[in-house]
Parts: sequence; C-alpha cells; structure tokens
Amino acid sequence: MKVTALAGGIGGARFLRGVRAALADAEVTVVGNTGDDIILHRLNISPDLDTVMYTLGGGISAERGWGREDETFTVRAELAEYGVGPAWFGLGDRDLATHLVRTQMLAAGFSLSDVTAALCQRWRPGVRLIPMSDDRVETHVVISDEAGRRAIHFQEWWLRLRAEVPAEAIVSVGAADAKPAPGVLDALAEADVVLLPPSNPVVSIGAILSVPGIRDALRETPAPVVGVSPIIGGSPVRGMADACLRAIGVETSAEAVGRHYGARRAGEGAPPGSAEGLLDGWLVDTVDAGVTVPGMRVAAHPLLMSDLDATVAIVRAALELAGV
Amino acid sequence: MKVTALAGGIGGARFLRGVRAALADAEVTVVGNTGDDIILHRLNISPDLDTVMYTLGGGISAERGWGREDETFTVRAELAEYGVGPAWFGLGDRDLATHLVRTQMLAAGFSLSDVTAALCQRWRPGVRLIPMSDDRVETHVVISDEAGRRAIHFQEWWLRLRAEVPAEAIVSVGAADAKPAPGVLDALAEADVVLLPPSNPVVSIGAILSVPGIRDALRETPAPVVGVSPIIGGSPVRGMADACLRAIGVETSAEAVGRHYGARRAGEGAPPGSAEGLLDGWLVDTVDAGVTVPGMRVAAHPLLMSDLDATVAIVRAALELAGV
Repeated sequence: MKVTALAGGIGGARFLRGVRAALADAEVTVVGNTGDDIILHRLNISPDLDTVMYTLGGGISAERGWGREDETFTVRAELAEYGVGPAWFGLGDRDLATHLVRTQMLAAGFSLSDVTAALCQRWRPGVRLIPMSDDRVETHVVISDEAGRRAIHFQEWWLRLRAEVPAEAIVSVGAADAKPAPGVLDALAEADVVLLPPSNPVVSIGAILSVPGIRDALRETPAPVVGVSPIIGGSPVRGMADACLRAIGVETSAEAVGRHYGARRAGEGAPPGSAEGLLDGWLVDTVDAGVTVPGMRVAAHPLLMSDLDATVAIVRAALELAGV
Repeated sequence: MKVTALAGGIGGARFLRGVRAALADAEVTVVGNTGDDIILHRLNISPDLDTVMYTLGGGISAERGWGREDETFTVRAELAEYGVGPAWFGLGDRDLATHLVRTQMLAAGFSLSDVTAALCQRWRPGVRLIPMSDDRVETHVVISDEAGRRAIHFQEWWLRLRAEVPAEAIVSVGAADAKPAPGVLDALAEADVVLLPPSNPVVSIGAILSVPGIRDALRETPAPVVGVSPIIGGSPVRGMADACLRAIGVETSAEAVGRHYGARRAGEGAPPGSAEGLLDGWLVDTVDAGVTVPGMRVAAHPLLMSDLDATVAIVRAALELAGV
C-alpha cells in the first residue's frame, strides 16, 4: 500500500510513527513543511523536516519533542557571550551538525530534496521524506507592536513572542514562485490513501498547500483523503494553533477546521475535486463526536497520541474512515 | 612605548603573554598570521588569530595550547556520524561559535580586521590584534605520495600527515595579490621596537612576510627589530618547524634560522634596510651561545617558556638586545 502524508513538526512526526507501526509494509511518503525553515548564523535550518527525521530515526528528544536527545547548547551559550543571538532559537550542538551538513550541501548546489535524502541515509526514518518544495518558502507573520506594523519570521513570532502578539496575517513568502519538490505531485497522484496528520492547519498544512500545484493534486488524486483534527474540544492538542486559526478567521474547533479544509466531493459518489475542498473524511476526537461537515464523512476516536499504541489506533481509525 | 610583534600560533601567543606582563603600559600591536586559515563546513576558521586571542584573553586550553578550555567536540562527532569530515581538524563546540560569528560577519561584508576587532571586544586580549591581511592567503604544501604530486592545505599536512610526508615546497597562495591589513605597515613604521617571537619561521613568520609590503616595512622601520629563536640546540621547541625549514633548505639550528632572517644593516651603525635581511638582534638559547650571524647582535638566554616568569625574562632579554 502507498501512503502519502503531509506533515508539520511534532504532531505530524508522532502521527507518522503511528503510521509506520500500523502499516509495516506500506510505502510511506511524507511531504514535509519547510515554511518554518529559517537561516540563522548563515545556517540553513529546517525544523519540521528535522523533527520528522529525528522522530522516525530515533534521535528526537522525548521530553521536548523537537531537537536531539542528550542535546547540549554550548555553541548557543558561546554565541551569547559574543552578544550574538537570537537566544530564543533552540540551536543545539548535535542539531547544529545537521544544519552544517545541509548548509554545505545546499551551497554546493544540491537541492533540499537531495540534502534531505542524504541526511536520511543516517537516520533511516523508514519513510521517504520530501520537502514540500526545493524553493525557499518562508512563513511570515504580520504583527503590530511598539515598533509598528511589520512582518516577522514565523519562528520569531512562535518562539520569541510565543504567538501572544495577535497575528494580523500569516503569509507564505516565496510560495507564489515555488514549485513542488520532485516526487510530491506523483506521491499524491499515485497514493492509495492520503493522510493529513493533526498538524497545524495554517502554518504546517497550510504552508504546504501554499505551494502552487499541491492543493490541486490533493483535490484530484483518486485516493481517499482523510484528515485528523488537531483540535480537541476547542483547544489545540499542543502548540498554539488557535493563534494561527484566529489570524485566518477560523474558530478553534474540530468542526471549524474540518469546514476550513472542506469536502472534495460535491456529494456521496461525486468525483474527487468536484467540490472546493480537500478531504473525504475527517477524524475528530470522541469529545467532538456529532460534528458534521458538509460532503465529508466524519468519525470520532480518542485523538490524544499519548503513546505509540494510542497513535496506532488513531491511524487505524483514519484508514478505516478512508475505507482502505 | 609602542611594541609591534608578528605572531603565529601557540609559541607566538605565549611569548605575547610575556610581552604584556613585561610591559604593562606599552601599546602592543600584534600582526597575526592568517596563512593557516581554512574554510571547513563553510566556516571561516583563523586558528592563529584565535590562539592569540584566546591565550591573551584567558580562554585558551592550558593543556593543548590551542582551542578553548573546557572544550567539547559534540558537533565534530555528529558530523562524523553523517560521514562528514575531516576528523583531523580540532573543531570544538566552543570554538565553533567564534567561527560562526566570523563567517557571518565576513559574509555581511566586514573585513577580517573588523571581525577580529569585534571578537576581541569579548576577549579583551590587551593588545591590538590585526590580521596580516584582509585578503585570503592560504599556505599550501607540495607533497608527493601514492596520489601523485600535489599541493594540500597546510592544515592537512600539519594535522593529518603530522608533517611526516616531506614538503617539497611551501607556497603562500594568494599572497602575491594580497595587501597588508589596515594598520600593519603603520604599526611597523611607528613602533619603538619590533619583535619576532619564536614562531615558525616558515609557515608563521614566513607567511606574514609573504604579503607584499610587510617585509619592506620591517626592513625600513627606524625601530630596532629583534627575533627570538624557535630552535633550541638543533630542535624546534614545539611543533614541527624542522619539517618546514627542510622544505626551504634551511638547517634546523638557531644559527641557520638567524642567517635565514638575515641582518637589516650592512654593518654596525649602517641604516636599517642597507642589507638584505630583517633583524638587528637575534636571541638564542644559552645552549646555542656563541652562534654568530653577520651584521647582527646575538645574545643568549634560556628560551624555554616554561611559565610566565620565564617568558617575561625572555622578553626582557629581547628588549635589552634591542636597546630599548
């Protein structure tokens, strides 16, 4: 079976661990969000790709959910001694080696896809991990504060400001001119099932969908497309998705996010792409049972990924909803 | 009093610690060797400048003489896990922060002089440290081995091959087109005394002298110029200077190195620059007492820099020889 998933960081990576465990023999392709990529200290940093790679490769910090286990932060402390920030970015020493390899390969002319494949030779995540695009796309957030109205990098808003300053807009800089990375469209077209993990609908899944061609490929694939709600009982499971949803005028509820994604069939039996949306099925938590989204099958299942078994059960419920 | 010194790495840095202690009120300018600079992992690394800066700034590893005290090598180990070398370069985590700041500033358009001054704001070495040139100059070594006759970076020859493969030639790549960094020529012209520490005569002092204009400034300065022998009783005090001297056809002896530098006056009372060489005085170890170099005053003093007191005494002997 061929499974294709879009994925952001921590939530997506944990869900994918469940996918791999539930479907040991499946060919899994993961289209990773690169909208939160950032260049710091002239290093090309791809936090979401690394979170997926480390999580599936056994190198992730179990406690933090991002970065490496047994991490140290010597370099960051030394940079601070030079007065060089930002202090708010979690630049770990082990992690830094990944950034150095990526930066060096990109500078040598390799694409981010090539680099990601090379890094995965070490981590062997058991899935094919592809960036959403080899072109630079960065999520920026428009805020107003004492310095005026301005756009800042998503990471600064997320980490330094903890998403507490309201986002007036969230923009995908560079997306209009970006192309999907090689393999992305084929992975969607040739999948037996497409899954949207409980990643952030705006800055993770939304960033991936901002790359021209990906939304259409998702709407047109013959495979069933099922999403898993990142919102349980009106709150994000983790992270600050509510602050992102507010920026695009979507309520923080499983129902509102399901309606935001929308149905891809005008009705039961209609062909994919005959409506405006993306999903055939929407998996919500049991506390949200009864939610309805027009044109979409909705099922309820406990969605807390508290351990691998719970996550596998979520994946199975999503596959059941997909009918595969 | 204005003191100007040329300096390589460990030996030069230790000597400079003595200069600072012996002459608390002097304005000391250090022209640092950048011929052993290397770009690794897209990082601009200046080992000799850093050794001087860390040594005088209190951050040097007392045991190794290079790199930082309490250093860790996490990033290097992680790079090795990716199959990325070189393993022979001592890339420490603390040290790496210095390289990141330097690389970032150079990329932003600052000169190496600017960068060095900025780094010294943290380390406060108590001297003005200037690179020999803001232009890229790299010492390469011509060797013949199973891969044929070829030039390799000095660091590879020194660290990976431990200078055991004979150097057929030592070349200063880029020197012909390099200019002395701002302040270098003035520091030589305006000095009250110029000192050549017991640094490597070929790859440290020699590299500095390979930058057009520096040799002439040294020969023409009205200040006395005194060198301290890095060779004691036919052996280098530390490092593998003998392998470098062999490459340029100079015997490993205090006398031969003194003659290699040569006198800058045709005879007693003649003006500076009236002969072909660089020195007015040559300080050798007591085991080398009796050495003569035409046109040059030679004095003998114990030259092992075993502690700060011994080093201060060496500096005082050099100043006495200079007549200042």
